[in-house]
Amino acid sequence: MKSGRRAFLETFTKVAGSSVLIGSQLLTAIPVLGEVRGSMTVGEVIDLILKTIPGAPFSKTVDTLKSGSAGQPVTGIVSTMFATVEVIEKAVKLGANFIIAHEPTFYNHADETAWLENDAVFQYKKALLDKHKIAVWRFHDYWHTHQPDGVQMGVLTSLGWEKYYDEKNPAVVTLPGVSLKNLTTHVKEKLGIATMRVVGDLAQPCKRILLMPGASGGRNQIGAIIREKPDVLICGEVSEWETAEYVRDARRKGDKLSLIVMGHSPSEEPGMKWLESWLQPRVPGIKVSHVESGSPFLFV
Amino acid sequence: MKSGRRAFLETFTKVAGSSVLIGSQLLTAIPVLGEVRGSMTVGEVIDLILKTIPGAPFSKTVDTLKSGSAGQPVTGIVSTMFATVEVIEKAVKLGANFIIAHEPTFYNHADETAWLENDAVFQYKKALLDKHKIAVWRFHDYWHTHQPDGVQMGVLTSLGWEKYYDEKNPAVVTLPGVSLKNLTTHVKEKLGIATMRVVGDLAQPCKRILLMPGASGGRNQIGAIIREKPDVLICGEVSEWETAEYVRDARRKGDKLSLIVMGHSPSEEPGMKWLESWLQPRVPGIKVSHVESGSPFLFV
Repeated sequence: MKSGRRAFLETFTKVAGSSVLIGSQLLTAIPVLGEVRGSMTVGEVIDLILKTIPGAPFSKTVDTLKSGSAGQPVTGIVSTMFATVEVIEKAVKLGANFIIAHEPTFYNHADETAWLENDAVFQYKKALLDKHKIAVWRFHDYWHTHQPDGVQMGVLTSLGWEKYYDEKNPAVVTLPGVSLKNLTTHVKEKLGIATMRVVGDLAQPCKRILLMPGASGGRNQIGAIIREKPDVLICGEVSEWETAEYVRDARRKGDKLSLIVMGHSPSEEPGMKWLESWLQPRVPGIKVSHVESGSPFLFV
Repeated sequence: MKSGRRAFLETFTKVAGSSVLIGSQLLTAIPVLGEVRGSMTVGEVIDLILKTIPGAPFSKTVDTLKSGSAGQPVTGIVSTMFATVEVIEKAVKLGANFIIAHEPTFYNHADETAWLENDAVFQYKKALLDKHKIAVWRFHDYWHTHQPDGVQMGVLTSLGWEKYYDEKNPAVVTLPGVSLKNLTTHVKEKLGIATMRVVGDLAQPCKRILLMPGASGGRNQIGAIIREKPDVLICGEVSEWETAEYVRDARRKGDKLSLIVMGHSPSEEPGMKWLESWLQPRVPGIKVSHVESGSPFLFV
């Protein structure tokens, strides 16, 4: 069976480079630079992206340059979840000096580095970035604010759920009906996940899905469960004392509610893959490559 | 082989009810109430515990009553990680009306409930507590402040590592040397954990262990790695964008550093088991029972 994601990409490829509208939600018209250029600066690429984001630029955002400068000419772009040391090495091999990463580079949400200045791991990563003159820009708040949310669309299309999601609220997906067990198998296969954490009864029927990739926090996740009353919340990451315990208590009360925790990196990676196809036609002459940072975890 | 935990408990049992000092760290002298009493109030039990905690009572702490009142007579005490609906049901069956839980009752660190007031799960749990007049007190900040940290000692003894930890810094354990694979097997067996998440090479030799049960936060965990330079950090829970990514980058740099994530609830449960044996001789006439809340997760 052709996956929804692949079908979408083929459709997309046919019209890439021109203005395109697929469905009412999937893509908005693509403004391209008036001319095909071999070079743009990091700042020009960021500005081009921000023009598509409602309310941008934000006065408060974590989406800042973590390395490099806005003025440097871009030799190639890599999109990824985490600009890990390995992803940086791969960018170098690809001849790309601009990494657009969804998550932090330096192990904390605000990418504060003062506390790490004497640390050998931080120094090694920073030296690697400096040596190869790699710019890293975080694209988190803006990508989630894009209409539609770029991460959500990437995940929905990777899961082949384009037909099933609520256009007014893309976090809600209504499936024809599937057991929790089969749902986990589907998610693992489509997103390439080895093992997931689950709270629930694998035989439970699931129809109404609440899909929240990433780690949106206990109050957001629980609030959405209360509001949307799903059969299952599929998310990227939880604080165990928050969402997992809420679901456990709801189940003991008798609610038909389950939880799938995909892992943070694989849960949002399709959104950075989606960025590759979204951004490429906007920057003709610059190669955009998605590099998967992948999950760091073994399950033992 | 007799586990360190069991050996410790036997030693403890022999002297329970009188002042006792095992080693220089393991236990401080136990002050018991002057008389054997059949009944104490919740507030009296809390006061008795707080007398053993340096600096208590704290002006700011999450260790407050989540249910019930200080004035109610205690019929029995249950110690646990999470006062889940199931643990509350078990307390009722045991005839115990006072639950001492290490973690929140209402799915957020401060146990704020205004946002949950119209939620059926919250209402169900609150009604269950009210119906059976169960007091729930959180014992988190104080238990970690106890000298030695009650959670740390419970986990160390459960793991049979009494001989190996640094008395001045019980987070650091020096083992004779073991592969990461064998270390995971040991931890799983001793703490009853089905599956753990690991970042690392299972063949890596591990000697210097940094043992941090619970979820102490990325900056604390990474800061401790930088300071203590362990072969492996064993913790309860991580934010994936923090500690897991730091360890991944350190490994790519070439550091021999691994990470074991035990799961929050099983990682600290031995500390609440340890509370049972610590508290029982201090409250003669009241039965103290440890009830394991267990992990909510399946691994699929």
